This record gives sequence, structure tokens and C-alpha cells, in this order.
Amino acid sequence: MIVTDLEEVPWKKILPGFRSKFVHSENMTVSYCTIKAGATLPEHAHPHEQITNMLEGEFEMVIDGETRTLKANTVTVIPSNAKHSGRALTDCKIIDVFYPVREDYRD
Amino acid sequence: MIVTDLEEVPWKKILPGFRSKFVHSENMTVSYCTIKAGATLPEHAHPHEQITNMLEGEFEMVIDGETRTLKANTVTVIPSNAKHSGRALTDCKIIDVFYPVREDYRD
Repeated sequence: MIVTDLEEVPWKKILPGFRSKFVHSENMTVSYCTIKAGATLPEHAHPHEQITNMLEGEFEMVIDGETRTLKANTVTVIPSNAKHSGRALTDCKIIDVFYPVREDYRD
Repeated sequence: MIVTDLEEVPWKKILPGFRSKFVHSENMTVSYCTIKAGATLPEHAHPHEQITNMLEGEFEMVIDGETRTLKANTVTVIPSNAKHSGRALTDCKIIDVFYPVREDYRD
């Protein structure tokens, strides 16, 4: 059994204002992400399907040209290869999950 | 863009003391699960890989004969087809993610 204590996982700075702790399984990656208010996510896309679980805060997300404000207690599906960008309206805590594994975020 | 407000997702009682709200994507299922102290998870297995994200509480988990107490801020990978069972030592809040989709938990 692989139990990971997040206290022992180092933060990775993935973008200015964004930091994450990553846990990988055979097929999925989980990202525990904190974002500072005002930080911006440049438009990008990836073949990985993504599910964004908002735990705290508000994040303005644009997916394939559609803009929504994601609030705590919302779950957002970002399809494979969908262009997405965004901006943290407040400090945020998010759990993102990806399929398949984000090899680019492995150690 | 599919944004799900969890306030609008009905609870499903999946076992005595366990209730969950499910969100499905093309490849994954996310389960927002609350468990009452003392509730037990009978041994079972499924082909889906599972990642258990403990948000609150303590859950005694047995995976393939190995017992661990999962506390808040831990992330546990349950491999495909691994036998697992458990017992909530306290009230728990958990986000489980599965690959592939749990068709058995679709509406």
C-alpha cells in the first residue's frame, strides 16, 4: 500500500503564484494546488483530461472561449486538448486530477 | 465547459454510514464521500484504480492484507483489483478518484 503524507511532499512552483504537491498513480496524477490572488494561468492545452475540484477561493476560468467563475464546492471537467486559461480572483486551494499521468510533473 | 455545483448533486447512500456525491468525466469518477465514525467497508475489489484523498478524519484501511490508519492530508493509491476493506475511526471526509469511470455509480 502506498500512503503519501502530503507533509512530506515538496512544493513545486509551477507558475508565478502557483505551487503544487503532486502524487502519481499508474494512470492518474493528483495535484494539491494553492494559488495566490491575482495569479494568472496562460492559455495552454494538454492531451490529459483534467478535473478541477475547488476547495477554497474563486478562480476565473476560460475553457475553449467560455468564461466561468469557479467557486468552492464546484467540480469542473476540462476535456482532453481543450484550451484553457484563467486568473485567481482570490487565494485558492484546488485539487486537480489528471488522466493519464502528467509525466511532465514527475520528479 | 461542464461546471458542477456540488450543492446540486444528490447524495447517494452507498453503504450504511457512507454517502457520496459523484461527478464523472470521460475517463474518471470523483466521489465526495462522508463516512460516519464506526462505519465499515466490507472487503471488495474492482478493476478501477483508486486514489483516496483524506480531507478530514481517520480511516483504518486494509489493502491486500496490510493495515494502515489514513489521516487527513494523506493520499493513498489503491491499485487495480487490490482487495480492500476498512473502518472509520472518526467521522471522515474523503475525495476518492477512480480510473476508469465507475459506471456502477452513474445515475
